[in-house]
Formats: sequence, C-alpha cells, structure tokens
Amino acid sequence: MSDAAPFQRIAVLGLGVMGGSIARALTGTAAAPEVRGWSHDTEERRAALYAGAVTAAPEDLKEVLQDADLVAIATPLKAACRLIADIAAADLTRDATIMDVSGLKAPVARAAAEAGVAGRFVGAHPMAGSEASGFPASRADLFEGALVWIVAEPEASAHTQKVEALWRSMGARPVQTSAETHDRLMSLVSHLPQLAANGLAAALDGEGIRAGDLGPGGRDMTRLAASNPEVWAGLFEGAHPDLVRALRAMAGTLQDVADELERGDVEAIAALMQRTRSWSDA
Amino acid sequence: MSDAAPFQRIAVLGLGVMGGSIARALTGTAAAPEVRGWSHDTEERRAALYAGAVTAAPEDLKEVLQDADLVAIATPLKAACRLIADIAAADLTRDATIMDVSGLKAPVARAAAEAGVAGRFVGAHPMAGSEASGFPASRADLFEGALVWIVAEPEASAHTQKVEALWRSMGARPVQTSAETHDRLMSLVSHLPQLAANGLAAALDGEGIRAGDLGPGGRDMTRLAASNPEVWAGLFEGAHPDLVRALRAMAGTLQDVADELERGDVEAIAALMQRTRSWSDA
Repeated sequence: MSDAAPFQRIAVLGLGVMGGSIARALTGTAAAPEVRGWSHDTEERRAALYAGAVTAAPEDLKEVLQDADLVAIATPLKAACRLIADIAAADLTRDATIMDVSGLKAPVARAAAEAGVAGRFVGAHPMAGSEASGFPASRADLFEGALVWIVAEPEASAHTQKVEALWRSMGARPVQTSAETHDRLMSLVSHLPQLAANGLAAALDGEGIRAGDLGPGGRDMTRLAASNPEVWAGLFEGAHPDLVRALRAMAGTLQDVADELERGDVEAIAALMQRTRSWSDA
Repeated sequence: MSDAAPFQRIAVLGLGVMGGSIARALTGTAAAPEVRGWSHDTEERRAALYAGAVTAAPEDLKEVLQDADLVAIATPLKAACRLIADIAAADLTRDATIMDVSGLKAPVARAAAEAGVAGRFVGAHPMAGSEASGFPASRADLFEGALVWIVAEPEASAHTQKVEALWRSMGARPVQTSAETHDRLMSLVSHLPQLAANGLAAALDGEGIRAGDLGPGGRDMTRLAASNPEVWAGLFEGAHPDLVRALRAMAGTLQDVADELERGDVEAIAALMQRTRSWSDA
C-alpha cells in the first residue's frame, strides 16, 4: 500500500471488462502511474479516454508500447498469445515486464517461452470478472479482495514481485501457483460451471422457458449463459482433459436423476442432494 | 395497503424459512393480525416465540387451529397434504381459509378436493426462498416484491381474494394460474436448476474440488447444492414429465460438449454459447 508504485508507465492492451478495470483501478491509486490504453476497437479506446481511465489511447500499438515498463495484456487468450510474440518482435519494450490476465496460463507461458521473453513474463489470472463484456462493464473496484493467481518462471522473480505489488495496490491478493495446477483448477471451477450454465439455458430454451420466467435460483444458475463466446472459444482450445471427464460425470448424474424420477426413486435423489449439501458445508 | 386486514387470527403451521417469514412479515404489518405458530420442532416453536414472530406456539395442533380464520400451511409438500386432511377432519376451523405455500400445486389441490375443502383452499407459491433452512433463515422482508402464484378453484373465489390481499400486505404480487401450468413451469424454472446444481456439485466433488475453491461464477452455480433434501424429496415425487425430458436434453448437451472438446471443435461450443447468450438477452 505505502510502497512506491512498482511501475510508472503502463500499457494496457485490450480495454474490455478486465483491461478497463485494470486501467480504472490503477488510475485511482494514490501514486497513480501513467496508463495508456490500446484496443482494436475504436469505440473502446474512445470510451476509456472519455472515462479518464487512460491518459492516451492511440490506434498504433507501437505508440502505446513506447517506454512502457509494464505491458498488461487483457485480451482473449488467442490474441494474448499473438501479442506476446508481437511485443517480443517489436523490440520496443526492452526489459519491460509483460503480464497477461487470461484464464489459462499454460498457453501464454508457452508463447512467452517461444518468443524468448519468459524471463520477464508474468501470467496473472484474477478471480473476478463479469458475464457482461466490454469497457462499459469495467469497474475500478473489480479486483477488490479478489484472489489473483500468479504463474511465472523462477528467472522472472524480480518481475513477479513487482506484478504482485501492482495487484496488491488494486486491493487484490496475489498467490503463486504452477500453470498445470492453475489450468486444471480453472477447467473445473470456472469452465465446468460455465458449460453447465450453457447446458441448462439450452434445455430451458428447448422447453420454451424464457430467462425472465426464472426465480432467483434459476437466475443464479443461468447468469453465466450470457458470457461472451469470443472470450471462451480460446479457453476451450486449451481445455484440460479433466474437464471432459467432469462433464461426462455431470451428464451421467443428470441421466441417472432422470431415470430415478421416472421410476419414482426419490430416495436416490435425496442421497445425491445430501452428498452435495455436505460438500457445500465442508 | 390501506385495506382492513383480510384475516384476524392466523395459524401458521411450519416455522421454517417460509412459515417463519410469513409470521415475521404479518407481525410487522400495520393492522397486525394475531399470529399463532406450530411446528413439530420444539426448537423452532421456541425461536419463533422468542423472536416475537408469533404470539403463541403451543405444541398441540388443535390449540393453534382453534378460532383461526386462516390456516397457513408452510411445511414440505408431503406434510402439507397430510395436514390438509387432518385439518378437514379436526373440524375445528369451520369455514376458515386454508392456504399452503408448497412448490407444487396439483398434489395439494388433490388433497384439498379429497378432504372436501376445495371450496376454501387456496394454493400459494411465493417465488422467494433461501437455500438456507429453518426459522433462523426467515426474514420479515422475504416476500417484498416477490411474485406469488395463486392456484384455487373458482368456488373458492372469496377466499382467494382475501389470500391475495394478505400477500399484498406482505409486499408480494399475487398472480393466478392453474395447477398444471404452475407445476410444469416450476419443474423447469426451479426443479431443473436445482438438479443441475446438484449434478455440478457432485462432478466437482468427484474431481476433489472443494466449494471454497470456487470463484463467484462457480459459487452462483452451486449455491442450490446446499438445498434441503427433505423439502425437495416430496416435490420430486410429483415431478412433471417435462422435467425428465429437460434433464435428458441437458445431459445430452453436456455429452456433446465433452465430445466437441475432445475433437477440438471449438466452433460448435461457440455456437451453443451464442444461442444461450441470445436467450439470456431476450
């Protein structure tokens, strides 16, 4: 909190919920660094400038990168991997720290290694977000109290320390882990619930039920059905095999429940509910 | 609001989240009626008395029913059906209105018809509740702004009007429907999401993921996994056949997604997400 700001000139690439919220949060800190923004979307650049979240938002990526000591990549996963290569090739950022915030850490770690910047690359993944997308959904307090997974090579430790200080300045709690541990965990705690929400919404749609017909429980269960397919497509390319296994297990449970309902075996369903209730309380 | 109170002496049977909240809400209205409570659970009777939600909570059901002009049954479905028969047999309530708040309306309507009280029975189902259970989870404002489905025979119209006025006095919005329409809707908007949450929680449990590992999206998706099996068991006995069909459809979608992940068909998953996103926005 009272530390000197770990970075002075930050380039935020991607000004959606994540990038926009990083820009807003940093602009709001006491020792506010200079934050420049870039997006392929002209509207988002304008919105970020107008909101005062960034001091500049030029169209040219090179202009944004010039003299930056932190490049914060906040685009969907595939674009993030491409940008890591572009940034390394552009050679404009010398020894700047490169950070990303995408939802899987193995693919970006690979991209950083291939681009020869693993020694200054720090993968971050804040456990915060929104099913809404775009700059208008960004908030200065999005990361307040949020856990942020940090994945980096040991050789990048100086950069990692600065990135952790940056997240703390935004109210978040950085915790280091490995790409494998992180990606398996995310496949299960994030990707599986996402796909369950899509599966549930499709089933409701198939029965002619509208989103507005739902009560609070059903609304909670389908909120993620509004998530942005663009953000997710890349994540599913790098999906962990355990996600496939867990999806099949969930589908099997639902088939079993359907059978149990048909033969009036309420005891079996009660046993399932008792098990998940114990799990919730644990 | 400014109407005279529709009932003067109300007997609330069952003092869990629903019954407790009804008692608390009515005790808080301007023209507060006398509210007596009953529960098979001694602790709940004590808690309701201590909280001032009821003026009396005798152990003997007959004592609670004596002179009541409204009997509000707020127990799980099976107990509600039994109580309707008991109340009719006890002959203590003469022409008192009998109301229940359980989650399916066809079974209670049948019970009322069989007991010969269909002419003074009004089924109600407030779209409000909690995954927590018991009197401690009850709240005076639980029904504020909530939709309440009302199902009753035309011959019970005088009773229906008074029950609707009662719900309005608690800040709720009563809307009449038929038992068939209501029960199909509930099977899909309430029971299906409930079972989806159980299926998801079981899959996470199977992968060794704890509830505390989840982010906000996963927490929303598994909140219902803590629901009370006792409350639900009876609801699943009266489940609508379309629930079985929708469960199978959801299981099929999740199987398809597992296959698509395995063969890297991200386009197919994006198409599913696009469909559910449009559904969410509609």
